[in-house]
Amino acid sequence: MSGKRYCEKHKVRFYETDCTRNVTVGMLVNIMMLASQDQSNELGITVKKVNELGYGWVITQHMIDIKRLPQIYERINVITEAASYNRYFCYRDFWITSEDGEELAKMHSVFVLMDQSKRKIARILPELIDPYASEYTKKIERLPEPEKIVADEQVRIKKYQVRFMDIDSNQHVNNAHYFDWMMDVLPADFLMSHSLKKMNIKYKQEVHYDDKVKSSVHIEEEEVIKTVHQIKTEQALCCTAECEWKTNH
Amino acid sequence: MSGKRYCEKHKVRFYETDCTRNVTVGMLVNIMMLASQDQSNELGITVKKVNELGYGWVITQHMIDIKRLPQIYERINVITEAASYNRYFCYRDFWITSEDGEELAKMHSVFVLMDQSKRKIARILPELIDPYASEYTKKIERLPEPEKIVADEQVRIKKYQVRFMDIDSNQHVNNAHYFDWMMDVLPADFLMSHSLKKMNIKYKQEVHYDDKVKSSVHIEEEEVIKTVHQIKTEQALCCTAECEWKTNH
Repeated sequence: MSGKRYCEKHKVRFYETDCTRNVTVGMLVNIMMLASQDQSNELGITVKKVNELGYGWVITQHMIDIKRLPQIYERINVITEAASYNRYFCYRDFWITSEDGEELAKMHSVFVLMDQSKRKIARILPELIDPYASEYTKKIERLPEPEKIVADEQVRIKKYQVRFMDIDSNQHVNNAHYFDWMMDVLPADFLMSHSLKKMNIKYKQEVHYDDKVKSSVHIEEEEVIKTVHQIKTEQALCCTAECEWKTNH
Repeated sequence: MSGKRYCEKHKVRFYETDCTRNVTVGMLVNIMMLASQDQSNELGITVKKVNELGYGWVITQHMIDIKRLPQIYERINVITEAASYNRYFCYRDFWITSEDGEELAKMHSVFVLMDQSKRKIARILPELIDPYASEYTKKIERLPEPEKIVADEQVRIKKYQVRFMDIDSNQHVNNAHYFDWMMDVLPADFLMSHSLKKMNIKYKQEVHYDDKVKSSVHIEEEEVIKTVHQIKTEQALCCTAECEWKTNH
């Protein structure tokens, strides 16, 4: 059993793509998150309502599988469903399909409810979850942790400063920017000659306006082409990720 | 007399807005430019066709007037029209209206045709302009130049490095990023307490992947609140702009 399914159409805009003519992974996640926002608005669980109760939804992990990235001007379907939840975690699935219904990408995401005044994770409130008709389960999913960069590994590093427009209407750094910091640190010729297949990204600590972030990556070009990422501020490790790539032909 | 008018609807997405819940000025320009791309595609003057002939459209100036920025989730109309052209310049107008037809913003833009191999401005080709039915005129518009920062004026500076995803499918730095560099250099409390009324932005030199750009601004808080901007790479002055602001109440 699973929750209410929500579907919307999207036509890829030029400003959601990069020089490869494909959607950037950050924008892919934005496009999927938009569908869950639109479902929530339709069900009356607006960000405003959640905030008025003293809470906010926070994403802790995305697991992304990509067959093919949508291209500039392509018409796609975006489907989402609040799959299940337990006392503290909500699990949501997303799919992107082509106009013909072919699956292009999917994502499994973990959401928690944050008590805004205590700055702590809160128990899921029935009035915020019931409308999605998702399944209650006692089971806590044990999702794999992204691999970590180990001390003496060779890494590439780029530094970024969080910009005013990186902060969204929820007063958080928009998700897409973490992906941009993680991808931009890779060499351009790697990005041109490889396609992202899988990404497991885990958020640990919030990044704020004006923070200086350091994006590091370790590249492993073995049988499986893998990149291992971390985003650090001066104070903390904020986000880790592991990506799997395929070579373009 | 003027050219064919093109109109499309748009619903503002969360990732087109910032913490003020308004569309960023860079995204406002993207949303308008999308309408002109969609018109061009409908008339068969695709970017691909223009490139195959050895040319590319390049924007040299935007003059923007804003009554109110569209807000998150707002439904707007985007209207555009290739107003007129002479031997070397095409002039295009854009309007954004609310769902009720109230004018929210307008923009007047100048386009030139670039010969890709000679890297020089080319004469406008009849087959690339005729489908828009815009008016031929001998008159070259004398648009005001943005004010310049003078040598001993007090300026704020931030530095940026052009990212992989800043380059769009036309292999240029997407327009929106110039606006982000120009806005982000302003103090956050200025951006929170003021609204952009007018912007005159002029592009002089292309910026490339990995370039280091320096965004400088001089703020004048006299009777008219004005900011004067420049974007420089290590080699050249690439872009200048002048903005007029109003205080939020």
